[in-house]
Amino acid sequence: MSRLIKKISANAGMPPGSLIHIGDKRIEDTVITMMKYNLTEFEEKQIKDISGFPSVDDSSSIIWINIDGIDDIEFIEDVGRHFNLNHLLLESILNTEQRPRFEDYEDYIFVLLKMFYYDDKKRQIVSEHVGLVFGDNFLLSFQERNQDVFDTIRNRIRKDIGRIRKSRADYLTYTLIDAIVDNYFIVIEKIDDHLEGIEENLLSSPDTEVTQKIHNLKREMLFLRKSAWPLREVVGAFERSDSKLVHRTTGIYLRDLYDHVIQVIEYIEIFQDMLSGLLDLYLSSVSNRMNEVMKVLTVISTIFIPLTFIAGVYGMNFTYMPELQQKMGYPIVLTVMIIIAIGMLIHFKKKKWL
Amino acid sequence: MSRLIKKISANAGMPPGSLIHIGDKRIEDTVITMMKYNLTEFEEKQIKDISGFPSVDDSSSIIWINIDGIDDIEFIEDVGRHFNLNHLLLESILNTEQRPRFEDYEDYIFVLLKMFYYDDKKRQIVSEHVGLVFGDNFLLSFQERNQDVFDTIRNRIRKDIGRIRKSRADYLTYTLIDAIVDNYFIVIEKIDDHLEGIEENLLSSPDTEVTQKIHNLKREMLFLRKSAWPLREVVGAFERSDSKLVHRTTGIYLRDLYDHVIQVIEYIEIFQDMLSGLLDLYLSSVSNRMNEVMKVLTVISTIFIPLTFIAGVYGMNFTYMPELQQKMGYPIVLTVMIIIAIGMLIHFKKKKWL
Amino acid sequence: MSRLIKKISANAGMPPGSLIHIGDKRIEDTVITMMKYNLTEFEEKQIKDISGFPSVDDSSSIIWINIDGIDDIEFIEDVGRHFNLNHLLLESILNTEQRPRFEDYEDYIFVLLKMFYYDDKKRQIVSEHVGLVFGDNFLLSFQERNQDVFDTIRNRIRKDIGRIRKSRADYLTYTLIDAIVDNYFIVIEKIDDHLEGIEENLLSSPDTEVTQKIHNLKREMLFLRKSAWPLREVVGAFERSDSKLVHRTTGIYLRDLYDHVIQVIEYIEIFQDMLSGLLDLYLSSVSNRMNEVMKVLTVISTIFIPLTFIAGVYGMNFTYMPELQQKMGYPIVLTVMIIIAIGMLIHFKKKKWL
Amino acid sequence: MSRLIKKISANAGMPPGSLIHIGDKRIEDTVITMMKYNLTEFEEKQIKDISGFPSVDDSSSIIWINIDGIDDIEFIEDVGRHFNLNHLLLESILNTEQRPRFEDYEDYIFVLLKMFYYDDKKRQIVSEHVGLVFGDNFLLSFQERNQDVFDTIRNRIRKDIGRIRKSRADYLTYTLIDAIVDNYFIVIEKIDDHLEGIEENLLSSPDTEVTQKIHNLKREMLFLRKSAWPLREVVGAFERSDSKLVHRTTGIYLRDLYDHVIQVIEYIEIFQDMLSGLLDLYLSSVSNRMNEVMKVLTVISTIFIPLTFIAGVYGMNFTYMPELQQKMGYPIVLTVMIIIAIGMLIHFKKKKWL
Amino acid sequence: MSRLIKKISANAGMPPGSLIHIGDKRIEDTVITMMKYNLTEFEEKQIKDISGFPSVDDSSSIIWINIDGIDDIEFIEDVGRHFNLNHLLLESILNTEQRPRFEDYEDYIFVLLKMFYYDDKKRQIVSEHVGLVFGDNFLLSFQERNQDVFDTIRNRIRKDIGRIRKSRADYLTYTLIDAIVDNYFIVIEKIDDHLEGIEENLLSSPDTEVTQKIHNLKREMLFLRKSAWPLREVVGAFERSDSKLVHRTTGIYLRDLYDHVIQVIEYIEIFQDMLSGLLDLYLSSVSNRMNEVMKVLTVISTIFIPLTFIAGVYGMNFTYMPELQQKMGYPIVLTVMIIIAIGMLIHFKKKKWL
Repeated sequence: MSRLIKKISANAGMPPGSLIHIGDKRIEDTVITMMKYNLTEFEEKQIKDISGFPSVDDSSSIIWINIDGIDDIEFIEDVGRHFNLNHLLLESILNTEQRPRFEDYEDYIFVLLKMFYYDDKKRQIVSEHVGLVFGDNFLLSFQERNQDVFDTIRNRIRKDIGRIRKSRADYLTYTLIDAIVDNYFIVIEKIDDHLEGIEENLLSSPDTEVTQKIHNLKREMLFLRKSAWPLREVVGAFERSDSKLVHRTTGIYLRDLYDHVIQVIEYIEIFQDMLSGLLDLYLSSVSNRMNEVMKVLTVISTIFIPLTFIAGVYGMNFTYMPELQQKMGYPIVLTVMIIIAIGMLIHFKKKKWL
Repeated sequence: MSRLIKKISANAGMPPGSLIHIGDKRIEDTVITMMKYNLTEFEEKQIKDISGFPSVDDSSSIIWINIDGIDDIEFIEDVGRHFNLNHLLLESILNTEQRPRFEDYEDYIFVLLKMFYYDDKKRQIVSEHVGLVFGDNFLLSFQERNQDVFDTIRNRIRKDIGRIRKSRADYLTYTLIDAIVDNYFIVIEKIDDHLEGIEENLLSSPDTEVTQKIHNLKREMLFLRKSAWPLREVVGAFERSDSKLVHRTTGIYLRDLYDHVIQVIEYIEIFQDMLSGLLDLYLSSVSNRMNEVMKVLTVISTIFIPLTFIAGVYGMNFTYMPELQQKMGYPIVLTVMIIIAIGMLIHFKKKKWL
Repeated sequence: MSRLIKKISANAGMPPGSLIHIGDKRIEDTVITMMKYNLTEFEEKQIKDISGFPSVDDSSSIIWINIDGIDDIEFIEDVGRHFNLNHLLLESILNTEQRPRFEDYEDYIFVLLKMFYYDDKKRQIVSEHVGLVFGDNFLLSFQERNQDVFDTIRNRIRKDIGRIRKSRADYLTYTLIDAIVDNYFIVIEKIDDHLEGIEENLLSSPDTEVTQKIHNLKREMLFLRKSAWPLREVVGAFERSDSKLVHRTTGIYLRDLYDHVIQVIEYIEIFQDMLSGLLDLYLSSVSNRMNEVMKVLTVISTIFIPLTFIAGVYGMNFTYMPELQQKMGYPIVLTVMIIIAIGMLIHFKKKKWL
Repeated sequence: MSRLIKKISANAGMPPGSLIHIGDKRIEDTVITMMKYNLTEFEEKQIKDISGFPSVDDSSSIIWINIDGIDDIEFIEDVGRHFNLNHLLLESILNTEQRPRFEDYEDYIFVLLKMFYYDDKKRQIVSEHVGLVFGDNFLLSFQERNQDVFDTIRNRIRKDIGRIRKSRADYLTYTLIDAIVDNYFIVIEKIDDHLEGIEENLLSSPDTEVTQKIHNLKREMLFLRKSAWPLREVVGAFERSDSKLVHRTTGIYLRDLYDHVIQVIEYIEIFQDMLSGLLDLYLSSVSNRMNEVMKVLTVISTIFIPLTFIAGVYGMNFTYMPELQQKMGYPIVLTVMIIIAIGMLIHFKKKKWL
Repeated sequence: MSRLIKKISANAGMPPGSLIHIGDKRIEDTVITMMKYNLTEFEEKQIKDISGFPSVDDSSSIIWINIDGIDDIEFIEDVGRHFNLNHLLLESILNTEQRPRFEDYEDYIFVLLKMFYYDDKKRQIVSEHVGLVFGDNFLLSFQERNQDVFDTIRNRIRKDIGRIRKSRADYLTYTLIDAIVDNYFIVIEKIDDHLEGIEENLLSSPDTEVTQKIHNLKREMLFLRKSAWPLREVVGAFERSDSKLVHRTTGIYLRDLYDHVIQVIEYIEIFQDMLSGLLDLYLSSVSNRMNEVMKVLTVISTIFIPLTFIAGVYGMNFTYMPELQQKMGYPIVLTVMIIIAIGMLIHFKKKKWL
């Protein structure tokens, strides 16, 4: 079992804004890619270090810098210095245990959220920390490792599909969050499959592992919910924001996104209810089977224990037992035994125990 | 077991407003019917394709176009273009997993909701996706397949019953939603019947299937509730809307409709509580029966095991067992056995085990 | 078991305001009584049909018309026409499944609520639908059948007790609602008695029927709560109403009434918690008794099964069994058996199984 | 078991403001004490009847009249007339089932609440109804019987301790409520002791009475909570009141009092959670013990039933059973039996059943 | 078991603001340390008694006085007099059962909260009462005993790390609260470890102690939650405060702190859910094992009881039992027995009981 909570207390006692990476190291070297585009022009390149970062003061083009890998603290600090970012913001990006949030710093807006994957091999949900900082004409995106979730967006920029090349950085930020929330639905479908599997299992051959599986899924739901719930506030705050960085035309998309987030939360809650229902179903099926077992034991015992007693009586070695000498003794006793057994069987049939 | 969640992730990674049909194909060919009416005139016809669509700019008549079948994406796109509808709106109409919503686009208002049927054969609730778009003098209604729910409304228009011919498109929209919510009550009655059946079953002959039935109904309630809950917000937003498309006179009807929606939600919650109650009742009846079984086993065992032991003692083959030679040995032992048995029976009678 | 939900879907597909009676027919003929009073004058009479209805335009006297029986749709329609009432209002009066509501129609105010009785014979709660419509100087009250709940109020009017003759129709409406809510307390006391009975039963002689009783009471609480909960909003809306029909002096009485409604709801919730508690108590007492049964079985089996085995060994027919020929064999074996039995008993005593 | 709810329906059908005492008669004769004080003067005396009541119009001194006993309706009515109190207020004072409330009547303010004692003999919580009415310079306090809770406050007035002689009637009212809430903490400590006792009991020697005790405490918590919860609103309304009778300087004390009330509610909720926890603990310990019992039964049965069967086989009386004549037959069979028994024991040891 | 609630009723009946220490004595002598600093200067010293206290009127430097030990009432009273603090505030500092609060006294602000440690030896959470009073240029911190939680902050002041020397007393107060909340995370990690240990235990060797452990942890969560929940309001009130003592620049840090508090509460709630889940898992594993035990008993009994009966029949001593004389009698009976046994085994194999 992997640890649920990473060393969240690592920066206890540090001054606020101290940069400490909390989380697993997930990538060898930090990978930085830059896209620069406007309606007519488009440029894409790999950046090695902070010296290659462009200036974002010239506002004609949108600059999107994506940083995969957040464990190189010095580099993150350089980025912060280059874009003049608040230290608390950088601390949040480094701390993978930080909860999703939306923070307006006037010159730029900071969005922190969780991405989710379903690891098919380990059959468990993997969560990843994503930080987004956008101004009027730039977006910085921080990820724990190289993922292909944003590739479709890169394609849309390259091929000028949809409104993306016509819009400002707030719309680009929206598309990234939208892509992340779309990924939540994939995870939800996987869980739905998983749940269905458990239910079929439970009905065909209920075994002990089922409770363990239900328990594990329940726990994953708790952590999924913990990440999805605050996302509601994040997207809500984004939508209601009166910052000049968020344009009116993006509002309708954010409202749509908000609905998707609500939907994610609803599915999680339904899954939680279904898991409780499955546990109830399991427990009642266990009771039922116990009942079956008990009935068999009781029927067998109740029929044969009295008969064995009768046999025991005529197995006694008393010298004077008149029945033993009678010729019809044995068949009579056997008949009595059969009558008793049949009587019992009828009785149990009536009680519906058979 | 059918899949609960359709391929909701199908448009993950697509630009917002991408038109992808998420759901089952439920109709062969899209069927389009148009009604055009005002206080004095009335016209009704079948339309084949987008070329037959009327212009809605002339505001003297109300035009209601009903579209059965939402899987012909190109056609839906054409409709969107004809009425100048937002792409996110079209995406919502095509995605049957989208949650109910009310969206004001100034020139038109969009209402998305779920219709419910009770499939008597499969004994399960069927949900259907309905999208309504209305302006001042037109209403577009999108359904997954041809249903007869709106037939009574068509009759009212044809025969000029009630206020419908005297009102604008907002009132027509209200009547459609009202018809859908009325259908919810039919589903609720079916579930009520079903619940009653389960309860009687549980009391007369409690079997293992009952838990399965309770579990299934519980799950259906979860999904029913998921659709009914946001409908509250939808109708509430409709009622409170300050759009010029929603007339003051419709307000009182919407308030009435809101009350009906609340009632639907209340019934669903009561059903959920009753299902939990039934499960408790079932479990306690299982415990009780287990207790009965155990008592029978214990009574039989406790009476005969000691007697069998006594018989066993006098079945031992020791050469020197003085009792065996005594003439009264056998009757005395038999008497002792009977006394023990009667004593036990009295004891159990006192303990109320018999 | 009676049907919980009446044919609520009867008016599905009808235009809003369609008058259909949903509920049981509870009275043969509609009975109409009228009281007309002011500070100095007082008149009381039975009215046969709509032709006998007074005009309410002359505002010097208060006119209270009470209608017992709501299944004569034509008559209700006539009443509506006479007082110029909204059709949705009439629909609500006829539909006994409609939830409690408060609606301000400017010229008159409409209050819909539930009355409750405890049917001592059937040991169940009976609910009745009550509709009240009041203007400045008139009150219409609709009941399902003739009840004596309002008799004390009639007496107060006849004998000029309290503020009733000095006040307007809003105060009269308040007194009717107050009388209905007072009746709730009678029902609550009955349930309290019932609950106490169940609890004593459960402690003295817990039987299977108890769970059934708890279950039934639980279900009744669900329906009671369903009617009481919206009453809170109704009385709250009445109190906060800024209609000119609700006078400032009535406010303090409505606040008091509101408190009573809250109290009713609190009792219902406490009863629900107590019923859950009783079920827990029952289940744990069942477990306990099961435990007792198991202990008896185990003690008896554990003592006698080994002894029976020993007896069985010396009942074997081997030719060469040296113990059998020894003179002290039999008493020694008996002694061993007694020692084993006593040892077992001491062991069980220590384990507190005896 | 005492009745939980007193005859709350006694005034059903009465006009509002009808004075009827609902509750137990707890005192023989009504006792009235008066304190009159200002910064420099102080007077204390017993009053016999309404004729001895002072006028409260002279505003230089604070007059506190304490009335023990609320079942003398005529007297209460006289008091009401003397101070010109609203009839609904008097009805609330007489009705011990009335829920706590705060009501501003402009000239005076009315506070209704519950006092609690722990009856050490009966080991149960006793609740008492307290009504407080205060104007600018007077306070009327109504109690069900003579209690010593307010004695410390009387002492503070007598000896001029703290701010009490320097403040107006609102502060005096606050000190009375504070004394009552302080008493809640005594009750809470008693329950805490009780709970701890139950827990120790449950761990050392779990018996059937424990569930009964838990159940009783659960029920008492329900009623305690019912009284404490609205107190929150009462003190909150007192604090936020903009009446000229509540002075700004009292605000900070009321805020402190509010915090105490919240604390009381928190403790009650924690106790409720702990009681649920104890019930779970009890049930799981019952299951565990059941499991133990079953294991003993199974081990004994599983070892001896097969052995008894073997003994039974060689106890058969067939003429031709070659084993019986062999000299080593008996020891071989015994050895086989011992091997089987040991094998079983090892098996159970491995399964951790022993 | 230690008492959960200290003598909270000790000051029942005392005038408000009475100084009584409620809690355990945790330190021998009160230890007072003072730090005085501004951007350029820094001074640190131990203070013996109130005479050594500096005046805080000169506003150029920040003065932080830390007081370890709150049971010397006289001294606390002296401090209160020196800083002119409200008596209710001092009462709250002395009462370790007081719930967290934020109170603005205009000239100074009072924050009361709980610190938590995990006592590794006793494996339980220890809570400590902390009171903070700050004005523009001074901070008083009251702790129950000498702790090293604030040492890192002292170091930051000494070495001029971060913003602390550049900011006013509100920022210093923030850093103290931040250090305390950081400590919560350490406690949360310990509980997480503990929980994981319980889960592994439960899966490998489920024993009776597990429920006891779960129960204890559940109770600790209740108390942890009781302290953490109001902290949310405290930090929220601090952030939203419009006092001139709270500077705008501190707002962003307080928002960050607020997020941390929310995170603490979320973890506590997740732990509570997980503990419920573990209990469910435990109970279902107990049921499962019970089922296993029952199956073994039933299989053994069902196979051997009929066989023993057959053996018993041929052990009867009837003179005329033809089978006994037949040569093949014995082998035939043995064969029949073996067939029955094998038949039973196959039957149980099919039923998956083996």
